[in-house]
Amino acid sequence: MFLELDELGPRYLQLARALKQAILDGRCAATTRLPATRVLARELALSRNTVLAAYEQLAAEGFIEGRVGSGCYVAAFAATKVVRATAQPSRTPRTRKAALARRGRRALELFDQSIHGRQHRGLRYNLQYGLPMTNPQLASAWRRELNHAAAHAEMDYPDPQGLIALRHQVCDYLARRRGIVAAPEDVLIVSGTQQAFALAADVLLDEGDRVLLEDPHYRGARQVFQTQGAHVFGCRVDGDGLVTAALPRGKATRLAVVTPSHQFPTGAVLSLPRRMHLLDWAQRSGCWLIEDDYDGEFRYDARPLAALKSLDRADCVIYIGTFSKVLFPSLRLGYMVLPPGLRQAFVAAKWLTDRGCPAIEQAALARLIASGAFERHLRQAAKNLKTRRAALLTALKRHAGDAVEVADSSAGMHILAWLPRMSHAQSQRMVERARSRGLGLYLVAPYCLKPLPRPGLLLGYADLPPADLQAAMRVFGECLREVER
Amino acid sequence: MFLELDELGPRYLQLARALKQAILDGRCAATTRLPATRVLARELALSRNTVLAAYEQLAAEGFIEGRVGSGCYVAAFAATKVVRATAQPSRTPRTRKAALARRGRRALELFDQSIHGRQHRGLRYNLQYGLPMTNPQLASAWRRELNHAAAHAEMDYPDPQGLIALRHQVCDYLARRRGIVAAPEDVLIVSGTQQAFALAADVLLDEGDRVLLEDPHYRGARQVFQTQGAHVFGCRVDGDGLVTAALPRGKATRLAVVTPSHQFPTGAVLSLPRRMHLLDWAQRSGCWLIEDDYDGEFRYDARPLAALKSLDRADCVIYIGTFSKVLFPSLRLGYMVLPPGLRQAFVAAKWLTDRGCPAIEQAALARLIASGAFERHLRQAAKNLKTRRAALLTALKRHAGDAVEVADSSAGMHILAWLPRMSHAQSQRMVERARSRGLGLYLVAPYCLKPLPRPGLLLGYADLPPADLQAAMRVFGECLREVER
Repeated sequence: MFLELDELGPRYLQLARALKQAILDGRCAATTRLPATRVLARELALSRNTVLAAYEQLAAEGFIEGRVGSGCYVAAFAATKVVRATAQPSRTPRTRKAALARRGRRALELFDQSIHGRQHRGLRYNLQYGLPMTNPQLASAWRRELNHAAAHAEMDYPDPQGLIALRHQVCDYLARRRGIVAAPEDVLIVSGTQQAFALAADVLLDEGDRVLLEDPHYRGARQVFQTQGAHVFGCRVDGDGLVTAALPRGKATRLAVVTPSHQFPTGAVLSLPRRMHLLDWAQRSGCWLIEDDYDGEFRYDARPLAALKSLDRADCVIYIGTFSKVLFPSLRLGYMVLPPGLRQAFVAAKWLTDRGCPAIEQAALARLIASGAFERHLRQAAKNLKTRRAALLTALKRHAGDAVEVADSSAGMHILAWLPRMSHAQSQRMVERARSRGLGLYLVAPYCLKPLPRPGLLLGYADLPPADLQAAMRVFGECLREVER
Repeated sequence: MFLELDELGPRYLQLARALKQAILDGRCAATTRLPATRVLARELALSRNTVLAAYEQLAAEGFIEGRVGSGCYVAAFAATKVVRATAQPSRTPRTRKAALARRGRRALELFDQSIHGRQHRGLRYNLQYGLPMTNPQLASAWRRELNHAAAHAEMDYPDPQGLIALRHQVCDYLARRRGIVAAPEDVLIVSGTQQAFALAADVLLDEGDRVLLEDPHYRGARQVFQTQGAHVFGCRVDGDGLVTAALPRGKATRLAVVTPSHQFPTGAVLSLPRRMHLLDWAQRSGCWLIEDDYDGEFRYDARPLAALKSLDRADCVIYIGTFSKVLFPSLRLGYMVLPPGLRQAFVAAKWLTDRGCPAIEQAALARLIASGAFERHLRQAAKNLKTRRAALLTALKRHAGDAVEVADSSAGMHILAWLPRMSHAQSQRMVERARSRGLGLYLVAPYCLKPLPRPGLLLGYADLPPADLQAAMRVFGECLREVER
């Protein structure tokens, strides 16, 4: 009898598995007698005890019958099925795409499109947006709090709404830094911004509902709403942020996602009259607003502006903040501040989705904020980001001159560099050329619904010290000239 | 001017907030002049610098115009809207239930029903299913690994499919203990069993699709499928697990959730002929199977039986395992083993849902498994659970006699105790009476789709040492007699 052992785990289980395969394949037909343990042991150069243990395992699972050691037979349970199973090509992937639901098919398509370009191994300078800034002091503070939390945190199921201590800290923080007055019962702890969008889709969107996004916008939001079957459409932005005069009239918009503090990716700040107009429009049209305050913490030039949520008198704003961006992306913690009318439904959706976020990391984060280390990091990070941004802008000016136009911004972890003299095809070539020279550049086009009149690049600078940014911009300038030639 | 400061954060921001409220309320009308800083400072007993800073903040945000210190006016931006906003009852919760999507409404209803009965504070003996067993050795091993992982883990976005090191460990573990041969690319790390069900709903279910559950069954699965609009129906179970002869013919079933190792909550083990029959049925009818192996680790009497997944020759079984139950629920980590045809779609859904699980805890868990501490804990836990189960059964027999029938089981963290002499109303009274005496009992009824012929109780024993279980059963017996009288 031909038996191939897979070398995984104990010998007797390997053998049991191989015999089971033979039975299921029909190679050991039902009701036939198995080889005597001695015989098989010799044949396979195994100890007899191993074979005995394998036979016992098979007997316990019902695959064989009889007395182990004195005559075992393959059980008669499934003679016909076994043959059918063998007729199947057993190990070829069934891609039964038709067997996926609509949401499954959409998720697959969006993922296939997006996962390209995340391959940034081997790049010397990667200007990808969203890479975190390394801060050794923060990292050691985090380790300390995590260690403490692991020793003291609850082991039972967490509160699906989030640890009360963390929700308290979020409220205090929001009052101090973002002008938002919220109580812990308004706050829901989530696994980052992406989950906040996914929960909003769950709670607020039926198939075909209309969702407004700024154009350009954060792609993750669009992808989750499209997957859920929403009809996503864009509204343009200019130097003052979302052009509220262009908001749709008449047609019911169910949900709009906005980035008032720092439009993503253009960096524009939504002016106060437009904020008031937007709130008024949302209230009149019964539209929920999501304020994605993804990097409102990092303003360098002015005091932080109060959030849209702090102006919301009609309880139509859902505020989203994240700790992943300001601490590190692998943390996966963020929060939502919810209007009273939505609180319970979002908590329910979170509870159904995953029962709540891990307790230890929540407890550690609550302590990190309470200790002051979190805001110390924010101040330090803002200072560093300002220096890096200045270095990037100076070097960009020097090496690219007026081939590049930079949208003005005084916040965040990236700039948007337009390439007014280039075609889209040229900009694509520029990205490829840069990549071949170890420089990771990223086009803004994937963040848009409508085609842009001119190409642009999103330059993330949080991850690179000034000297690297200068070197990166030298390569940038060279690539630019090669493509323009 | 009446201004109430909210005592949150710096004084100047408190004042700025109060002024903003007054402007938005219409108490400070558009274009009117604000009080001079000196005057307001005296009036509110604040320093003039605080008032100056508040005015500067308001000017920066566009609420007031003019030169701070020499005459400021409320901006003219929104005179009309302000009045409308005031007319609204601003702080009363808008429950706009109609503004929720269907899934949001369903989630809310299910949550409202379920959250009762989770109030177990103040109970002396809580026999709730799912409470973890405390293990100080494990806790300190976990702290050690967490500490190490925090110092070494990636800070960047995690792999949405899960840390490769953890997926490797899961594969080795599954081969050793569950007879499943899987490669790391077949494994998806998720935030616990609940998320696995939620992702399955996302990827596999359209509104109205038919989902088969064992009846009785794990409620969390039913709730997530019902929220997603699936048509959930039950199939009965007996002492050999799911009655496969009762599987539906003809009508297309999209998905079936089964617990072959240890039927939840009856504890029955699905016999091998039924396993083969179930697989054959699933293959013929194009139905996906979810094998929820929620506590397959904890078998005391025999070697662990191979999982259904290990018999799956047609790639229609999705295997779900959890670390929350065997380690501690606040961890929120589990895994799925996916057929090749579903792999990419589930990874995509996970990526859209939350971008992936936190990296540090994944890294710590990978090391915990690799170190052997995880399986040491499993062995230790199984031994303790066996002792506790025996103590519970003996005490139950002694104090309740034949008023209780226990379904036979040799695994898990709970038993199912039927009350053949009681009506459902009596069993409800028994639960209430027990609660008033500090004993937490839980009916099996919420885990069923069809009404049960007789009431039953789910008795979780993982969390209580034998002496407590004995004391709990004494109270149990007393309550029983009081109710039966």
